[in-house]
Amino acid sequence: MDLKEKIRNIKDFPEKGVIFRDITTLIKDPDAFEYVTDALAKHVEKEDIDAIVVLDARGFLFGAPVAYLLKKRIVPVRKKGKLPAETYQVEYQLEYGTGQLEMHKDAIQKGMRVAVFDDLLATGGTAKAACELVELAGAQIVSLNFVIELTELGGREALSGYQVYSLVQY
Amino acid sequence: MDLKEKIRNIKDFPEKGVIFRDITTLIKDPDAFEYVTDALAKHVEKEDIDAIVVLDARGFLFGAPVAYLLKKRIVPVRKKGKLPAETYQVEYQLEYGTGQLEMHKDAIQKGMRVAVFDDLLATGGTAKAACELVELAGAQIVSLNFVIELTELGGREALSGYQVYSLVQY
Repeated sequence: MDLKEKIRNIKDFPEKGVIFRDITTLIKDPDAFEYVTDALAKHVEKEDIDAIVVLDARGFLFGAPVAYLLKKRIVPVRKKGKLPAETYQVEYQLEYGTGQLEMHKDAIQKGMRVAVFDDLLATGGTAKAACELVELAGAQIVSLNFVIELTELGGREALSGYQVYSLVQY
Repeated sequence: MDLKEKIRNIKDFPEKGVIFRDITTLIKDPDAFEYVTDALAKHVEKEDIDAIVVLDARGFLFGAPVAYLLKKRIVPVRKKGKLPAETYQVEYQLEYGTGQLEMHKDAIQKGMRVAVFDDLLATGGTAKAACELVELAGAQIVSLNFVIELTELGGREALSGYQVYSLVQY
């Protein structure tokens, strides 16, 4: 399937000069959503993972069905203040200033093998922060999985040392 | 399955006097997540729907796997500023002041039959706003589906006229 046909390109969002890759047209198409979910599931199936980390919020859309298919635990990484129990916290770089991501301390046990899911890899800042959270819990990142990779933004380089997988590249 | 055993209760979150029902312990348990997903899918399967509306962000976790199973389109309703194309907008009541929810104008066609998914029904403010968005698009709400219902907060009454379904009640 040509996924680029399913992803909408929106000029000047969220700001001038940026082309936004919009996955809402992809998830609106049940065949495309099934294709993407199955492809991601197939990729991590062979990796013998224990947990699927899903990144707030679009990562939930792709990671949750994969976790359902593979019968793995779902661990959400969320923006600050959303998770109610004790959390690990990591700062990450935003375009202007920094933000904080959190993960429940009891979400992952030491030694677990973890796959991370998000919709899009840009600079890799969010994914890097998620890796740090998983490693604070003493677990191991096996792979980072994305639907879309914006290759010019250097996310793959920022995540060197980790296995990065994406279904479609711009 | 006794879902209340899988849902964690956290006192005084997000503020004093509130007991927060935490679904992260449920989604961490693959059997529980499968049970919930299958139960929700079974409920809407017989309703002959065209689209599944998922509410930002925890609704994504439950609605996306159901959409995968039933091969239905996924339509995200998101907080203001997150959706890149032309949107319908509706105000909804927050504890202090109001917020805005959005849905892409081209996400749903006129006459479609729609099921809405979120993790939790409290006062019903968010779900009501989602119904308004769907109706602005000329589509019909068939059911509102939740994992958890906080019965004392009157969400079901606020949503009278709609079919409300929940798996566990407090």
